[in-house]
Amino acid sequence: MSSRKNWKIATLASHSALNILSGAKHEGFETILFATPSRVKFYESFGVASKIVTVHDYSEIFDHVEENLIFIPHGSFVAYLDVNRILTEPRLIMYGSKTLLKWESDRQLKEKLMRESGMQTPREFTSIDEVNCPVIVKYHGAEGGRGYFIARTPEEIREKLDSTKKHTIQEFIVGTKVYVTFFNSIIRNRVELFGADIRYETDVDARIRFDSNPTFNIVGNIPVVLRESLLISYQNMAENFVRTAERLLGGSIPGPFCLESVIDRDLNIHVFEFSGRIVAGTNVLVPQSPYSWMMHGEPMWMGRRIARELKEAIKQDRIDDLLN
Amino acid sequence: MSSRKNWKIATLASHSALNILSGAKHEGFETILFATPSRVKFYESFGVASKIVTVHDYSEIFDHVEENLIFIPHGSFVAYLDVNRILTEPRLIMYGSKTLLKWESDRQLKEKLMRESGMQTPREFTSIDEVNCPVIVKYHGAEGGRGYFIARTPEEIREKLDSTKKHTIQEFIVGTKVYVTFFNSIIRNRVELFGADIRYETDVDARIRFDSNPTFNIVGNIPVVLRESLLISYQNMAENFVRTAERLLGGSIPGPFCLESVIDRDLNIHVFEFSGRIVAGTNVLVPQSPYSWMMHGEPMWMGRRIARELKEAIKQDRIDDLLN
Amino acid sequence: MSSRKNWKIATLASHSALNILSGAKHEGFETILFATPSRVKFYESFGVASKIVTVHDYSEIFDHVEENLIFIPHGSFVAYLDVNRILTEPRLIMYGSKTLLKWESDRQLKEKLMRESGMQTPREFTSIDEVNCPVIVKYHGAEGGRGYFIARTPEEIREKLDSTKKHTIQEFIVGTKVYVTFFNSIIRNRVELFGADIRYETDVDARIRFDSNPTFNIVGNIPVVLRESLLISYQNMAENFVRTAERLLGGSIPGPFCLESVIDRDLNIHVFEFSGRIVAGTNVLVPQSPYSWMMHGEPMWMGRRIARELKEAIKQDRIDDLLN
Repeated sequence: MSSRKNWKIATLASHSALNILSGAKHEGFETILFATPSRVKFYESFGVASKIVTVHDYSEIFDHVEENLIFIPHGSFVAYLDVNRILTEPRLIMYGSKTLLKWESDRQLKEKLMRESGMQTPREFTSIDEVNCPVIVKYHGAEGGRGYFIARTPEEIREKLDSTKKHTIQEFIVGTKVYVTFFNSIIRNRVELFGADIRYETDVDARIRFDSNPTFNIVGNIPVVLRESLLISYQNMAENFVRTAERLLGGSIPGPFCLESVIDRDLNIHVFEFSGRIVAGTNVLVPQSPYSWMMHGEPMWMGRRIARELKEAIKQDRIDDLLN
Repeated sequence: MSSRKNWKIATLASHSALNILSGAKHEGFETILFATPSRVKFYESFGVASKIVTVHDYSEIFDHVEENLIFIPHGSFVAYLDVNRILTEPRLIMYGSKTLLKWESDRQLKEKLMRESGMQTPREFTSIDEVNCPVIVKYHGAEGGRGYFIARTPEEIREKLDSTKKHTIQEFIVGTKVYVTFFNSIIRNRVELFGADIRYETDVDARIRFDSNPTFNIVGNIPVVLRESLLISYQNMAENFVRTAERLLGGSIPGPFCLESVIDRDLNIHVFEFSGRIVAGTNVLVPQSPYSWMMHGEPMWMGRRIARELKEAIKQDRIDDLLN
Repeated sequence: MSSRKNWKIATLASHSALNILSGAKHEGFETILFATPSRVKFYESFGVASKIVTVHDYSEIFDHVEENLIFIPHGSFVAYLDVNRILTEPRLIMYGSKTLLKWESDRQLKEKLMRESGMQTPREFTSIDEVNCPVIVKYHGAEGGRGYFIARTPEEIREKLDSTKKHTIQEFIVGTKVYVTFFNSIIRNRVELFGADIRYETDVDARIRFDSNPTFNIVGNIPVVLRESLLISYQNMAENFVRTAERLLGGSIPGPFCLESVIDRDLNIHVFEFSGRIVAGTNVLVPQSPYSWMMHGEPMWMGRRIARELKEAIKQDRIDDLLN
């Protein structure tokens, strides 16, 4: 790859596409959006895509890969496209680590990475009968928390479980959830705290419910800041995560990632998931989070931060270090 | 009306007056605020009004209408002034549609507009005995949700209802509430997604309550962003709403409006109200929402967006298209 | 003291240090941060401290006081340092009123100041047997709400209370909590509304709990705006507070303070605490709150507002009026 190319930034019309494209445009990149027909008009109204390519199925993007097109992966990118095809299609140039996407999509590799990073993670139960504490049962590939449920006993799990679906039984930690996003800058050689958010979920966040079995379907995100002393714990976890991923995956993990955590009443932080790419929670932090403002001294949202990194890499002829 | 006039922007000292006036000032307009004596000092401290006119009753503004004064209606404007007088006083020049304010204030016209726009709305019950699901009972003209209550059976309604007051019995949809604001730009010929918020209500939002019969008294607003795929559904609803209003009301509906909705556990969107003018929820989106930032590329709050539209209309000699 | 000095701004590495230092840097001050070893790297990554002095115990700062060093007190400053030593060490130059810190740390003086300011405050019970309403029991010096509990009867208090600890029994008002921050500008001779936030607490803010006895351990803060009519009530309370403090304490109270309140279902405002210095809730209002933006017309976070005031005082040779 060459830094002399006219690099363009591309993504799919969902999740955090506005965030990504508005940032890329702000940093001077040409941008390409792949959108299904019903979404074209909405994205056009924002004027952030230099070009919108209409597709009927997102897998069509594999027909559109070009040697100067950098895809920015987001949650829907991972959900709509086959991870194995992303991994094995060398012509698809992606910002970030393809290997990390694979580890993220495999429950056991994910757990291994979190634990070897030294994070406190909820226990996972392989047998229903071992359950001796409140648990949350998660179906694999469930979009946005749909169908997850809470149970307190093996009996309750058996009653609620659709055992035909692949699932994970995870200790349910009582506490407040916080999603903390970082940006791993290869160019500036540092892990930057970007910001934090809370998810807004239906119907668990309904103020009035008549059912004791809520769903966790993500509707949106709310901004939050953390106690400064807690931030330092998160920063340490994030740096351990980056170093551990480099060791286990055998390569760097450029760009954004998110630690999805719950803080219990004793202020212990439990990390129950990570996302190895931009999260939709950063959408509420456009045009900045308090932290990105204080660090950069200008409006700096995640889409812009990504584009800034790519721009600096191109200038320094190091773009290959960021792409995969 | 003439675009050569020295147009001034006016509003009443409540609701979103700071938002409106700071935006107008930022776009270079002279601004006039009508304030009761106890509010003068507070508004003065913000320095956003070129002139504050002290009134003892807001109906006095009818004595102050001038041919170059554009009133920006907000929630208190509608609550403090007689809608019929607004409608029938041609000297009161208002930004937006007076007819829409009338439709908004009439429960049946309101329902008709929402349903013909294709929105899924909660069922309304005309007879208590027909109630066969959880309902919320709303008193007409109640300010800020005061006195609303939830009930699950006809018996419970009868027990709680003050039947001397006009009321509406509406199906209560369990889910998370979201208030999504749009700006209908006549000048740019598009419906712009502006932003979203959540209401903060007492005492239903109290973390600890000892009473199962909460109130829904609005205290403030919290910012939120929505899943990008949901946003597109809201955008479609908003555009249908504008077109339907034009057809039913026989004229355009310039400016801000808000779709007040609840998203159930299956991610269905139910719209239970609309506001045909600026809502206080946009106050939390000063100086911008993520969406207004991405669309406009500069700080753009609702008060400023309104003033920007008026300025562009004056420049293009189209101000009459926006006023009523 | 002299305005010709090369004044520097200092604080301790916790609470709202990033907020304070980034604001001071933005206004052109040299900044000094006192940090324990494990925190140095985190603060370095933000680049907001001109110099970081490593200390092993925060009391070491007394060895580092200089005649041109202005300390900005925050929550951890008060928690980590002995208030009496702050009060009696004339070489420690602090922005704000040392006397107010003392009154804040003494439950009875605090109550006196709030009540004489005309605030409606929750009742305090000196005897457990007098309790005839829901109460919250607070242990003195508890950090971040840890160990607070709710009880409804004398029996319940006795059951839950660790009577070996100093505690306060306060009426528990059901409603929504709001923390409203002001800035008392001596230089501009006005009390500025700065912004509002909500605390995010574990585990009381957990969506799902299995225990009816939550803790109130502060994890972070969420931004909020208030109904404009309520804001005016808060503004009046804040101005009464400043005037009353001047009278009772015999001196001005420069800088930020926060009224910590609950709004009941009848929209009555009850103030249960105040903080006589910057609160961590202002961290979520970086780089601005809606109110600070509308008042100042530029990004204005609390750390910057403090620095701006100091800068204006230095220019006007009035710095002595702000320091203590």
